[in-house]
Amino acid sequence: MNDIIKQQLAHRSIRKFKDTALPQETIDQLVDVARHTSTSSFMQSYSIISVTDPAKKQRLAEIGKQQYIAESGHLFVMIADLYRNHMIASENQKETDLVASFDKFLVAASDALLAAQNIVNAAESLGIGAVFLGSILNEADQVIALLDLPEYTFPVLGIALGYPDQSPQLKPRLPKEFTHFENSYPRHQDLNASLKDYDAIVTEYYDLRDANKRIDSFTNQVNAYMNNRHPNRSQLLKHLHKQKMGKY
Amino acid sequence: MNDIIKQQLAHRSIRKFKDTALPQETIDQLVDVARHTSTSSFMQSYSIISVTDPAKKQRLAEIGKQQYIAESGHLFVMIADLYRNHMIASENQKETDLVASFDKFLVAASDALLAAQNIVNAAESLGIGAVFLGSILNEADQVIALLDLPEYTFPVLGIALGYPDQSPQLKPRLPKEFTHFENSYPRHQDLNASLKDYDAIVTEYYDLRDANKRIDSFTNQVNAYMNNRHPNRSQLLKHLHKQKMGKY
Repeated sequence: MNDIIKQQLAHRSIRKFKDTALPQETIDQLVDVARHTSTSSFMQSYSIISVTDPAKKQRLAEIGKQQYIAESGHLFVMIADLYRNHMIASENQKETDLVASFDKFLVAASDALLAAQNIVNAAESLGIGAVFLGSILNEADQVIALLDLPEYTFPVLGIALGYPDQSPQLKPRLPKEFTHFENSYPRHQDLNASLKDYDAIVTEYYDLRDANKRIDSFTNQVNAYMNNRHPNRSQLLKHLHKQKMGKY
Repeated sequence: MNDIIKQQLAHRSIRKFKDTALPQETIDQLVDVARHTSTSSFMQSYSIISVTDPAKKQRLAEIGKQQYIAESGHLFVMIADLYRNHMIASENQKETDLVASFDKFLVAASDALLAAQNIVNAAESLGIGAVFLGSILNEADQVIALLDLPEYTFPVLGIALGYPDQSPQLKPRLPKEFTHFENSYPRHQDLNASLKDYDAIVTEYYDLRDANKRIDSFTNQVNAYMNNRHPNRSQLLKHLHKQKMGKY
């Protein structure tokens, strides 16, 4: 097994960082990696914002409800970006109403998300820990205001990076028969019963985030998640529409 | 510079494959890598379908309008999957109407897309070439039927893999001042003028897909893209709603 795959199979999210900022050279290298990610139709419909202002980092930590966001060695926010290309076309008096389509939003979000994973792989190869911050979507409207995002852009994911100050255990994933299929999608029957062994494995897993606490079984976590109504997150589509994206 | 970053900076999409299928062991390894990707709230809201049936591969090649899809050494379709967790919760008589929210769709799509990039990085480390297939969204409804995808699932991206039978040049990306910002999003002015140098570089780039043809400048490509109305792609949101996803 080569080093890349070894690293990928050993991936753990890091949520406790040493008090050391990433060197500028490293940040530049991570951005370069992101720029060389595949991009749909060569449109490069994404942007990256480095959040270095301590007050803005602190605000994102409050939005994500995790203080380690403010304490990270570097913080990226990945943006689905149709604004730049809309501007190019508008300057040429071309119509740009397609930017409001869901198709174009999904393409832009894909560009941003593929680049996000590439950044994390590069960071981990340098001994840097990372955690994705879906939690920026808790208050997408506030993130949009904080970063002064124009219409036709939307923040899809944050990435907190830093030198690891913890060494969590590998979190056990669903057995592959539940996630990888051939040629068609199977209809699951009695999933809770089929997942009993996996539930037991997950229940035994001790997260170093809280070494003395057993975590709940996978199926119990799913049940809780499916009923966790976050008042602002359920406004996400409205926030997207306010950016004039994903409308049809 | 380490091997991982060197590989990422040298990334090229491969669109011509040798007539050799990927060994099962390799496919298993790529799926394992995908399974170890970060996943939002540990929900693992994605699935992977390997398309091995030659008739289905051919159909996807027609949908994507690229014969190399059928000729690839392996073909994955990445699925944003809320069906599995919906089933787990339903079996427990829990409400699951949140699966229809745009928030949950975006989370599921993110899980699938991060895993997609991880698969490509692993494949390239093994000397395998890859190209993402956003083109499966040309006819999302037909892909859904072809792979028998249930409600609460949606195909977000394909990946064609194989041993490379071409060696394309590195495609020049936008200068980083246009894609990486600090603390806030700048308002661009006169983008077409600012991109003149980059346009010249892109115009000079010879794609080995068609070595005798100069490609168009970046800004010209953007103008064309913004007005390329694909009749079915603009139905994408309807196809998503039909899967009972992204509704509010």
